[in-house]
Amino acid sequence: MKLLKAAIAKAKTLIPHQAEPPPAPLPESTAEFEPETTKQDEAHPCEAYNYLKIRFRDIGRMNAIIEALGRDFLTALPQGAYQSRLGQIVFLHRRMHEDLTDDRVQEWLDAARAHQHENPGKWDEWDAANLREMTQMYLMNAHIDADLIERKAHLSYEGRNHHRALKASGDWQQAKKFLAEQIDLHRKIADARCEALGLESHYEALMLEFMPGITVKEVETLFSAHETALNDLYPQIVEYQKAEGEPKPIDAHYEPEAQMWLNRSILNVLGFDFDRGSLHETGHNPVEGGTVDDTRLVIGKAEDINFLHSLKSALHEGGHGLYIQGLPRQTWRYQPVAMDLGAAVHESQALLIEMIIGRMTEFFEYLSPRLEGVFQAMNNPALTAENLRMRKTRIKAGVDRKKADEVTYFYHINLRFKLERDLIEGTLKIDDLPDAWEAGIRSSLGVMPDNYLEGCLQDVHWFVGKFGYFPAYALGHMMAAQLLHKIQKDIPDLRTQIGQGDFNALRAWLNDNIYAKGRLMDMQDMLTTATGKPLRAEYLAKHLKRRYLG
Amino acid sequence: MKLLKAAIAKAKTLIPHQAEPPPAPLPESTAEFEPETTKQDEAHPCEAYNYLKIRFRDIGRMNAIIEALGRDFLTALPQGAYQSRLGQIVFLHRRMHEDLTDDRVQEWLDAARAHQHENPGKWDEWDAANLREMTQMYLMNAHIDADLIERKAHLSYEGRNHHRALKASGDWQQAKKFLAEQIDLHRKIADARCEALGLESHYEALMLEFMPGITVKEVETLFSAHETALNDLYPQIVEYQKAEGEPKPIDAHYEPEAQMWLNRSILNVLGFDFDRGSLHETGHNPVEGGTVDDTRLVIGKAEDINFLHSLKSALHEGGHGLYIQGLPRQTWRYQPVAMDLGAAVHESQALLIEMIIGRMTEFFEYLSPRLEGVFQAMNNPALTAENLRMRKTRIKAGVDRKKADEVTYFYHINLRFKLERDLIEGTLKIDDLPDAWEAGIRSSLGVMPDNYLEGCLQDVHWFVGKFGYFPAYALGHMMAAQLLHKIQKDIPDLRTQIGQGDFNALRAWLNDNIYAKGRLMDMQDMLTTATGKPLRAEYLAKHLKRRYLG
Repeated sequence: MKLLKAAIAKAKTLIPHQAEPPPAPLPESTAEFEPETTKQDEAHPCEAYNYLKIRFRDIGRMNAIIEALGRDFLTALPQGAYQSRLGQIVFLHRRMHEDLTDDRVQEWLDAARAHQHENPGKWDEWDAANLREMTQMYLMNAHIDADLIERKAHLSYEGRNHHRALKASGDWQQAKKFLAEQIDLHRKIADARCEALGLESHYEALMLEFMPGITVKEVETLFSAHETALNDLYPQIVEYQKAEGEPKPIDAHYEPEAQMWLNRSILNVLGFDFDRGSLHETGHNPVEGGTVDDTRLVIGKAEDINFLHSLKSALHEGGHGLYIQGLPRQTWRYQPVAMDLGAAVHESQALLIEMIIGRMTEFFEYLSPRLEGVFQAMNNPALTAENLRMRKTRIKAGVDRKKADEVTYFYHINLRFKLERDLIEGTLKIDDLPDAWEAGIRSSLGVMPDNYLEGCLQDVHWFVGKFGYFPAYALGHMMAAQLLHKIQKDIPDLRTQIGQGDFNALRAWLNDNIYAKGRLMDMQDMLTTATGKPLRAEYLAKHLKRRYLG
Repeated sequence: MKLLKAAIAKAKTLIPHQAEPPPAPLPESTAEFEPETTKQDEAHPCEAYNYLKIRFRDIGRMNAIIEALGRDFLTALPQGAYQSRLGQIVFLHRRMHEDLTDDRVQEWLDAARAHQHENPGKWDEWDAANLREMTQMYLMNAHIDADLIERKAHLSYEGRNHHRALKASGDWQQAKKFLAEQIDLHRKIADARCEALGLESHYEALMLEFMPGITVKEVETLFSAHETALNDLYPQIVEYQKAEGEPKPIDAHYEPEAQMWLNRSILNVLGFDFDRGSLHETGHNPVEGGTVDDTRLVIGKAEDINFLHSLKSALHEGGHGLYIQGLPRQTWRYQPVAMDLGAAVHESQALLIEMIIGRMTEFFEYLSPRLEGVFQAMNNPALTAENLRMRKTRIKAGVDRKKADEVTYFYHINLRFKLERDLIEGTLKIDDLPDAWEAGIRSSLGVMPDNYLEGCLQDVHWFVGKFGYFPAYALGHMMAAQLLHKIQKDIPDLRTQIGQGDFNALRAWLNDNIYAKGRLMDMQDMLTTATGKPLRAEYLAKHLKRRYLG
């Protein structure tokens, strides 16, 4: 910290000829209260960039505070405190937006880019990436009115409550009204962003927030390729499994406390650091989140009937959590370059753990004897590794995305992607959503929801304003398969290690290639560096073929 | 909210002749996300006052966020997240200080006071009180450097950790170094405040933060009066109790979960609203706190050996909590006039419940049969009302403030008051503290601590920088006795009601006379309005005489 402080003081004395002196820097001394850091607090020869680092650190802090308040909302907040908490969160969103879109930020960015242009040798790859990400964050937000940002934060929480209430009422008219408000708000945000970034597609402008580095066209191409492969594979798998017979039912009584012990213990074995993280149950719809220093994972309450539901959520959130905890912390805390690469990469890490690793034969071999112990069910035939494998890899068309198997999952995502794209682009009217949903789910999976709640109202995403997020699940699944392909080459005995509950080599690989890289590269460059190729659809089909057709 | 927004817009167009237009108002639209409010969002004819209301609402929000982060720190934060959480809290303290001490605040305050002077009829008592409190908050902080504020927030948390570590090490040299740093910092803060407010005493400048409305001289007079009375009463009480014999021991195994159920149930019966509050255990040293919307009380972990310790803490924090929850919420949320009247009144509410009500014969009569149920100890002679009463009213000199009885408690406070006053005024050197402590406790109570931890290091207060807080306990005790005197006149069958677990009339009285008044009046005016007299020492001695000498 001293270094950065000193450089700013020095710069002030050394550049007296500067037409307009830069404004007083934001306070920087609080950084000394955080763990030992290096890179982020070093003085850079570009003065404007030093100001930017201070500004973005404050923005990062506000973001971390919002995360903490949000985690608290999910786990401990008294119900009657909801409205005032909402006011606090919305207030912080506005403050953060004001700090980010302040005119001085634009001036500093211009000056820093000019400095970089004139002194390329003084910008190492991390600083260059950090400046690139600062610029992108600024452009993504600069032209959006603060009132829209407030409204967005507000509707996001209200949407979560609205969706929860909906589960009891199922009232389509109410839901429609709320969704129309969300769509309208997000079209306005997209408008501003399209103009700032020169984009044509409203949907792309929103998707960009979740998944920088991939266009809607590229998503369409990847989805189309996978759909073609899947339309061929899916009937074969169904046929193949008919011959295998049915697994024994898992349903029995499993103590919720024992389930949570199991969930936490598995995450611990996977390498999740409980010294700066935890796993909670919530009565709300869980949200992924947390920060590198305080990774509080949240899953739904463990039901006593089937421990696999709760374990699945824990593995999924655990995959997210490992990624978050591995981001550059000591060196770049709160700086944009230390952020994750967006939802597609995030979901790739969640699905790699949950769907790919978490359904491997070897994983069940590790799990099975321990289940007999924790649930006090010695030699229970339902808990054998083979029965667990069969149970977790059964393919069956259904209307529920959350309960979907690994093969049909894609159809659910593909449907949502197309519908949300069209809703945002204005080519699908909200009134036509239920019919479009039903037509889509019937044509791809041959099933029909009994009501709106089983259909177009089942997910919380649109209610909280996450338009452009859904593709991340399928892209993440593809990415996870592509990563696995390379990991197995680099760690030939990966499966043996997993069977022994040893995830060290896997985690080290993910850390070196993904976690610790933050936003040093964009998504496609990261993937190309790690696997030799940008994102391809084919690895997922290969993985499914191997796992489901022997 | 519409009203206030409109008034500001209107003012801008109507006053074009104004030499310098007021700066753009802070965003106000988030207020609409909070529960229905009236007074705080009404447009006032004084434009500057409207700006002030918006500014202080934002400051209040930041304060509430700090509270939430602090509560989370005590109850749920992963240990490894401590440093980054500290950075966030310190950051918010600086932001809040900057918002409060901004030059515009001074301009608005000047303009508002001028408006009030010229248009007294347009300022009702609440608005006038709000402006007075705004001015006071500004003056208390305006001349303090932001770095000191940061340092204070930082050392406060570090002190809590330091004190906890000390319990294992007992290292006086380490402790001394830390305390010296705290004293030095607080003298600097007091310096700035003395200059701004024209005060002469450093200690008074610090005490003012906790107890506005009373001077050090007044405290000395009250303490001296009570000490004289007590020096007479105390030996009589000891003699009297010798004749009564000893109560049966309470110590046995009491399930911690059952204790927490009991604690929560008693608070619920007292009227604490669990819809916007809760009661937690913590491994840290508990701190009072929370906000009107989110009153999360925190007590130490229930030990299984004696439920009375945990119940005592719950009653004490519950008294604080009732006060917090009763403050003007719907009408004045986040405004200075909605704050509590400071530590003396706060402690009066805690001690009224814990020491005065919570040790009444009638309270034990209500409690006793329920204890037999919850702890599954039917007809247990240790749990009779009479045994509980004897056990909780035994007078015995000891070195531990927290375990002190209602009679000797004052001596502990009086000692700390004098020592901290002299430490801050510089007439007592930190090196001389242990000897001064020992001399003080020996001369007043005839006991000697075995080591520093039983002596001058036993309390967390100085470690967290609370210089000027200790007198609040004794003043609060006096105030509680004075209030009880009046309450019993207004509610003649109070004791019968308490015996039946009916606290409605008591709570209504406290609400009307104290809670709902916020800072409409200062402490002495509130007390005079409620009881007919400003704070007097004599009621406490009368209460003790009645309770302990039959």
